Amino acid sequence: MKKLQYPDTVKRWGMFELAIEGPREGNPFTDQHVSAVFRGEQETVTCEGFYDGEGIYRVRFMPSFEGEYSFTVKTSFGEEGTGAFRAEAQEEGSHGPVRVSDTWHFAYEDGTPYYSIGTTCYVWQLQSKERRRQTLETLAQSAFNKIRFCIFPKHYDYNLGEPECYPYEGTPVDSSNLNSENFWDYTGKKEGNHWDFTRFHVEYFQHIDECIRQLEKLGIQADLILMHPYDRWGFSDMGEEADDLYYRYVAARFSAFSNVWWSLANEYDLMPQKTLKDWERYASILGEKDPYHHLRSIHNCFHFYDFSRPWITHCSVQRTDLYKSAEIVSDLRQRYKKPVVMDEMGYEGDIQHGWGNLTGEEMVRRFWEAALRGGYPGHGETYLNKESLWWSHGGKLYGESHKRFAFLLQILEQTPGAGLKLWEKCGWDEVCAVPQKSLNQGGAGEDYYLFYYSFMRPSFREFHFDEAGKWQVKVIDTWNMTVEDRGICQGKFKVELPARQYMAIQIRRLMYTGSIPKTE
Amino acid sequence: MKKLQYPDTVKRWGMFELAIEGPREGNPFTDQHVSAVFRGEQETVTCEGFYDGEGIYRVRFMPSFEGEYSFTVKTSFGEEGTGAFRAEAQEEGSHGPVRVSDTWHFAYEDGTPYYSIGTTCYVWQLQSKERRRQTLETLAQSAFNKIRFCIFPKHYDYNLGEPECYPYEGTPVDSSNLNSENFWDYTGKKEGNHWDFTRFHVEYFQHIDECIRQLEKLGIQADLILMHPYDRWGFSDMGEEADDLYYRYVAARFSAFSNVWWSLANEYDLMPQKTLKDWERYASILGEKDPYHHLRSIHNCFHFYDFSRPWITHCSVQRTDLYKSAEIVSDLRQRYKKPVVMDEMGYEGDIQHGWGNLTGEEMVRRFWEAALRGGYPGHGETYLNKESLWWSHGGKLYGESHKRFAFLLQILEQTPGAGLKLWEKCGWDEVCAVPQKSLNQGGAGEDYYLFYYSFMRPSFREFHFDEAGKWQVKVIDTWNMTVEDRGICQGKFKVELPARQYMAIQIRRLMYTGSIPKTE
Repeated sequence: MKKLQYPDTVKRWGMFELAIEGPREGNPFTDQHVSAVFRGEQETVTCEGFYDGEGIYRVRFMPSFEGEYSFTVKTSFGEEGTGAFRAEAQEEGSHGPVRVSDTWHFAYEDGTPYYSIGTTCYVWQLQSKERRRQTLETLAQSAFNKIRFCIFPKHYDYNLGEPECYPYEGTPVDSSNLNSENFWDYTGKKEGNHWDFTRFHVEYFQHIDECIRQLEKLGIQADLILMHPYDRWGFSDMGEEADDLYYRYVAARFSAFSNVWWSLANEYDLMPQKTLKDWERYASILGEKDPYHHLRSIHNCFHFYDFSRPWITHCSVQRTDLYKSAEIVSDLRQRYKKPVVMDEMGYEGDIQHGWGNLTGEEMVRRFWEAALRGGYPGHGETYLNKESLWWSHGGKLYGESHKRFAFLLQILEQTPGAGLKLWEKCGWDEVCAVPQKSLNQGGAGEDYYLFYYSFMRPSFREFHFDEAGKWQVKVIDTWNMTVEDRGICQGKFKVELPARQYMAIQIRRLMYTGSIPKTE
Repeated sequence: MKKLQYPDTVKRWGMFELAIEGPREGNPFTDQHVSAVFRGEQETVTCEGFYDGEGIYRVRFMPSFEGEYSFTVKTSFGEEGTGAFRAEAQEEGSHGPVRVSDTWHFAYEDGTPYYSIGTTCYVWQLQSKERRRQTLETLAQSAFNKIRFCIFPKHYDYNLGEPECYPYEGTPVDSSNLNSENFWDYTGKKEGNHWDFTRFHVEYFQHIDECIRQLEKLGIQADLILMHPYDRWGFSDMGEEADDLYYRYVAARFSAFSNVWWSLANEYDLMPQKTLKDWERYASILGEKDPYHHLRSIHNCFHFYDFSRPWITHCSVQRTDLYKSAEIVSDLRQRYKKPVVMDEMGYEGDIQHGWGNLTGEEMVRRFWEAALRGGYPGHGETYLNKESLWWSHGGKLYGESHKRFAFLLQILEQTPGAGLKLWEKCGWDEVCAVPQKSLNQGGAGEDYYLFYYSFMRPSFREFHFDEAGKWQVKVIDTWNMTVEDRGICQGKFKVELPARQYMAIQIRRLMYTGSIPKTE
């Protein structure tokens, strides 16, 4: 059957893709429909297909298990068919999609803990080939394991250029007289744009496919921002029917990528053209059309969306106070009982806006604060007078904070079990993290404490642990990325510190496993 | 009449003192009573006297006006008398007691604005003569115009020594085995102290007289802390009768100093031995016995006292959040409609406690935040391994923040009119102060703006003022204490900044008074 093409094998959590030849005439995006049911020993999954141009319709499927699969395809244009393939063991390093784990945390589907270290490059995929190459190179060398970016182009300060192509067939408003001082005037639906919102520009989406795939190779989650307010082309105000078509299209197109997250919006509350009913309807489309139930959230400017809505898997937060940023993780965890991802806590940089001119030190401080409170921090960089601003374009990083996230990640990965929470007996002038689940392997209390002193500069701190325990004490300089072993301590003890900012103390119970040094 | 001694003249706002010989037998503090009525052309003031040892009773009076005064003394021991004196013009530099002005601010009685720049040295007056000399020298070279200190000795970390003498006749608990690790165990009334709470040790109080006088010479307000919880001698738990005797004694003794402020407590909420009724009773004693109605407040640890109580003239605040400190000025101003004095926002230093290990930069940042929000900041210093910790002992200052307060004070004194408030159109990522009272001499809007960027690092900021106005723009580096003139601007303009923290921009309307440079 020549009109139906597919491979014989796929990797578990990889993408299996059916290609079906079909009609080019009329409007294939709205006139036609394809879908397939995939059957394996442990799952039966119905997948919607999508039109990919040139008479080709595709149905994508991500097998969650190894083993034999069969499928049945149905189309509105008379083609039907069945087939079979085998899902082989996953690629080395592939752990499946990220899921919520233990209420406040994340793990890949295979159970591996996932400590999210995010960044934001809103439209990195719309930059030049060379810039994209740079971005991927920067990401490859970084600790980032999540990146937020927009499907639609973005119109905002430092980001007023036209993309090479557009998500829809048509022509954009003339931007040749664009004035950086009134970018907001262009926002929303504008006269002068001529789009056919029923015809996707498939090259635009094929390119995003490729970007998601490249991120997947780097082990990076693609946190896809589906809508946003910074728009001069009218994509933020297409009307209900076009919106729904769009949500169905991206769900059909991107769901089978294991590394996709859905973010319904960047700053949903700056889009008065959308009602609560709209957001809820979009969410229900994704809930219905994404058979893998990738992580879903919606991100705020001034006011949080109601993160308690059942479709929201985690809080995606922009801090709403200038002074308290990462620190709100504790409150949000308690309020929503979901993972708290601090996607925007301010960015390292020097632009005019207060959200984009933090020092590297402050960015790193916020990372530690967020992480030790059991939340997940996000980065961005906005340095002026450089080739590009990472936060919007990607490219190179010029700051100091990003160099220090691998070190944090390494410390986080030392957590016994998985995931941190604030210790309930944490003092007022420290942040003390303990494992989310107490293992209590060694005696009373926790087995692991990670104290952080943030902007404070204690010369020493005193501790009083149970007399029976033996404790491995390490002093961590979170900025200079050093770990100093202070040996084994018991009962009451004092830890000398260098009276600098950004210090931490890691205290771990010795488990009598032979790891006790002879000197003790 | 030899038994009654007094001078012929006194300066306005100076201290006139009557000395009356009287009985030494019995208990002069409780058995006897002296008082006097002072009559001038513009005031009649009744003053209570106090016993000062050696058979001498004193009545003190501070004339609020120049001119002729007469007085009548009455005593419980049969001495009566009258006399007259002349109040001459005040000493140069003397402006009278500090009063609340314009709801949220302070001014001396002669109307001169008072921008409070405070510090804390809890028991500086109980240190050695050499240390006290150092303290006064440090103060003389500083911008501080208010100092908080305790009448009673203090027992706390780094401050466990015995004072040279005590406020009462008797003997203290043996402190020779004092252990720094359990200072709190000593707090409150303890066995082992033997005091007669009806007999003040007058040398102790004479010494405080002298200290207040020395501060007055330096133009520094003495913010007297009347009670506090850090006590091993029992002065925090003397019982109602002794407490009331104490409040009457200090009111009679200290009220006639023009530079006295009353702080009923440091951290009143750490004194469970006191009830709300107690505090209110103490306040009513001061209200009745201090005829000059010096400023009165009460300072918190975790929970503010109800600052809306009518006897409280201003909020004396310890910040209650680790991350938001000076920033709460705005809320407190709105809530209480009184001046907000941020007496404790954390201290520069490196001790183990989070309230005492800020960087100099952060201390200065908090000063600017508090001041530009129309509050009044307070300092303290707690560096370890130095001769003494300023916060408790006085002595020398080792930090960096104190060097920068004269510069702030100088900028504050440039405020047209008096007193700042947060501009109602202040952006979310700036602190913009405008004069408390708009003068509007030059056109629409304010005549004076002071923008501050705190920990942020904008490379530039853009402004849009009315086109008619001409604006003198200056860029202020609050840390490096430089002011850079950026000339005259109009309408829309951009101010370049060095992308460093702690920058401010001062924008002042040109009033066409001939001060417009020719280059314009």
